[in-house]
Amino acid sequence: MADQLSADEKFNLVTRNLQEVLGEEKLKQVLQERELKVYWGTATTGKPHVAYFVPMSKIADFLKAGCEVTILFADLHAFLDNMKAPWELLELRVKYYEQVIKAMLESIGVPLEKLKFVKGTDYQLSREYTLDVYRLSSMVTEHDAKKAGAEVVKQVDHPLLSGLLYPGLQALDEEYLKVDAQFGGVDQRKIFTLAEKYLPSLGYAKRAHLMNPMVPGLTGAKMSSSEEESKIDLLDSKEDVKKKLKKAFCEPGNIQNNGVLSFVKYVLFPLRGEFCVKKDAKWGGDKIYTVFEEVEKDFAEEVVHPGDLKASVEVALNQLLEPIRKKFESPELRKLTNSAYPGPSKTKTGAKGAKGGGGGGDDELAPSRLDIRVGKIVKKIDMRGIESQAMLLCASIEGEPRRVEPLDPPDGSSPGDRVFVEGYEAGKADDRLNPKKKVWEKLQVDLMISDECVAQWTDKQLMTKLGQITCKTLKGGNIS
Amino acid sequence: MADQLSADEKFNLVTRNLQEVLGEEKLKQVLQERELKVYWGTATTGKPHVAYFVPMSKIADFLKAGCEVTILFADLHAFLDNMKAPWELLELRVKYYEQVIKAMLESIGVPLEKLKFVKGTDYQLSREYTLDVYRLSSMVTEHDAKKAGAEVVKQVDHPLLSGLLYPGLQALDEEYLKVDAQFGGVDQRKIFTLAEKYLPSLGYAKRAHLMNPMVPGLTGAKMSSSEEESKIDLLDSKEDVKKKLKKAFCEPGNIQNNGVLSFVKYVLFPLRGEFCVKKDAKWGGDKIYTVFEEVEKDFAEEVVHPGDLKASVEVALNQLLEPIRKKFESPELRKLTNSAYPGPSKTKTGAKGAKGGGGGGDDELAPSRLDIRVGKIVKKIDMRGIESQAMLLCASIEGEPRRVEPLDPPDGSSPGDRVFVEGYEAGKADDRLNPKKKVWEKLQVDLMISDECVAQWTDKQLMTKLGQITCKTLKGGNIS
Repeated sequence: MADQLSADEKFNLVTRNLQEVLGEEKLKQVLQERELKVYWGTATTGKPHVAYFVPMSKIADFLKAGCEVTILFADLHAFLDNMKAPWELLELRVKYYEQVIKAMLESIGVPLEKLKFVKGTDYQLSREYTLDVYRLSSMVTEHDAKKAGAEVVKQVDHPLLSGLLYPGLQALDEEYLKVDAQFGGVDQRKIFTLAEKYLPSLGYAKRAHLMNPMVPGLTGAKMSSSEEESKIDLLDSKEDVKKKLKKAFCEPGNIQNNGVLSFVKYVLFPLRGEFCVKKDAKWGGDKIYTVFEEVEKDFAEEVVHPGDLKASVEVALNQLLEPIRKKFESPELRKLTNSAYPGPSKTKTGAKGAKGGGGGGDDELAPSRLDIRVGKIVKKIDMRGIESQAMLLCASIEGEPRRVEPLDPPDGSSPGDRVFVEGYEAGKADDRLNPKKKVWEKLQVDLMISDECVAQWTDKQLMTKLGQITCKTLKGGNIS
Repeated sequence: MADQLSADEKFNLVTRNLQEVLGEEKLKQVLQERELKVYWGTATTGKPHVAYFVPMSKIADFLKAGCEVTILFADLHAFLDNMKAPWELLELRVKYYEQVIKAMLESIGVPLEKLKFVKGTDYQLSREYTLDVYRLSSMVTEHDAKKAGAEVVKQVDHPLLSGLLYPGLQALDEEYLKVDAQFGGVDQRKIFTLAEKYLPSLGYAKRAHLMNPMVPGLTGAKMSSSEEESKIDLLDSKEDVKKKLKKAFCEPGNIQNNGVLSFVKYVLFPLRGEFCVKKDAKWGGDKIYTVFEEVEKDFAEEVVHPGDLKASVEVALNQLLEPIRKKFESPELRKLTNSAYPGPSKTKTGAKGAKGGGGGGDDELAPSRLDIRVGKIVKKIDMRGIESQAMLLCASIEGEPRRVEPLDPPDGSSPGDRVFVEGYEAGKADDRLNPKKKVWEKLQVDLMISDECVAQWTDKQLMTKLGQITCKTLKGGNIS
């Protein structure tokens, strides 16, 4: 298809629906001569969910326009963001990302031949790259580095040095991935302008930058994959999709911050070129739109009602998800999913119930395998003659000074009361934890304090029979 | 000798004359079991001068106490400090440092078998080390990094990111050099405490720290090797030593900030165990002291006069320098000196005058080889048919924004007036500069704006017949 497009047509395809493009002229010039090379990076942390269809639709545009697309799995960034996760887990997550993103792209019917997957650590720890990181840090001021990261690096009271390094690394990636342009959300803008400013000082070419608008999530305003239950996972069942869509914010006639409408605009239209709104026959029956603005107008005028819109998106979304669910029914991919994201199995399409509720299978990481008690956690470890170790769970936030608080059980608790994770009440703790399996270490990774100061494991509350486990002030803290 | 010392005696030798020791107990414990491993690092920038005898005497103590001593040539730091210097020049400087430091140690008669020389880039760009730099930067706050570098990183209006990285690198060096302790000036204290705080978080042992006091320079208060003419170079002739010592600050009876007395205390006594004060026979003749405090007391009471002290130090210093001068008379080392520090030859003991005043020998880098004129610099380059290029010299300081100012010739100058470097008035510019020799690049490295806003090349002023070349405000700026 790309062969039949003119340079102008390719340019339009590459830039459509974007909020901003820096370096248009350069892009046009390259397109006169050869295909564009574009990169998009993602840190391999949380599980990709349906919001990833937004950048994927744009990547589909790039591929349709003949671009060579590189997808960077920023595993080094993921490691730095969450140093608690062992490398072995991060490796699995990179594999999961690759599989799921390929499945998404296959599902939306784009050719994969011009797509390249690269892992950050494949080159970001090389001598050459590292020297460039140092060279760059001898040119970039603290102030510039801070400014560049302001929108994407978590802003905290005691910012870490790593937050100042990320923007430079992302700039260097453009050179090391040998691309013409980097694609990302408009929240990356300041990193992009830092790259444009400093790459030439290192003797490297200034790259173009393609920026997607910030699109509200399908079921809420947040996009991050490390939050809320409400998000639709790529492997969610049809029932879950229906249930979650039902809760999505979508007021009659209100086209602002409407995640459902945005999904139609940024995913369904670019992919299909049309969208079918399901309506009961008595209201005129189904209607096929070929221009998004007409859907929007009809929704604004309440010709299309939230229920209709949601039902229509549900059908289209399930069409997108079905091939992904199918692919992930294979035993290898189910195993990969469970080991990359230990927790309640979300691939319920398969042997449903077999592992539900947190059984004790040696390979499954149910939090119920830990014998956590009020006043202590008992880690039963049979190593070097030490039969069991007990330790007190605390919340902590790294910084200067490191802040630590004990966890508070519900009022009226007695030492020894069993602590469980919501949904895993029934699980039985292992008699002993095999130290080689690192069960504690792997489960600990997902223990956190929520923004409401509640202790959680993968967004599920830690509880006793009397209620939640909390801490006083350390929102976002780790638990260990 | 070390074989005959008890652990206590070794400890006393290792720690004598130090201002502060962190981790004494650990040191004592190691000494009960085996020899200590200590490291000292130096960035391979300016030419080491006689002040380097201060750490060298301490290193002599370590070696006498049986320690395994590692000397780190921090070439990566040198590169980052002064990115204008090409690697090939830095390589030469590392070689020069190694030769001159070995010569110093030989001169003070210490065994070199337990001494190891390591170059920073031998391991600081490795995958493993780099990952640790990132891990560390995910634990160290910006605030801690800044605080740690406060006394050693140049404090400027627009601090660079690299300044925040140095302290962490220096901490990691302790682990990668596998030492028990790091030695340095007490100005390194905050870096040392950062290392003590964070190495354990990476799973590495906390090291001990040995801190020398800040010793005033022999001929002035400043210690940095990148400054003033007054400093005594290790290869200075006897006449130069006499001349420079004559100018040294040394008031009768004043024992504060007295660099000459400090040299006796921190270099001559530790090395010799005694010091001979030369006095005219009519004032009682020479007196041999075996305790420094007595020299100090006699000086305070004006029993010993500045002239006597200087003359006595001159004798002792020349004894230390003589073997170094001798060693550097070899053609290889003279060549190394000239190529590592292109500039007026300081090894005047050899073929004196042959290259004096900046001749045009193709391998010598006299600044007079450049045809610099008011209003322009003419770089005659015969490459790709372009016969000559002219460019305007400007002062600049990197930062946000980069600040640039043109250089100002003396009042009354006319375009085309010849600009020369003080001391090189007589030199003749090359007809053409061989581009492969990078004459301009190598000379440019040492072009700087002084703290008085005067343009300099290796501390010598850039002038026309009418006076100095200056700029308005960019103190410490580069010239290019």
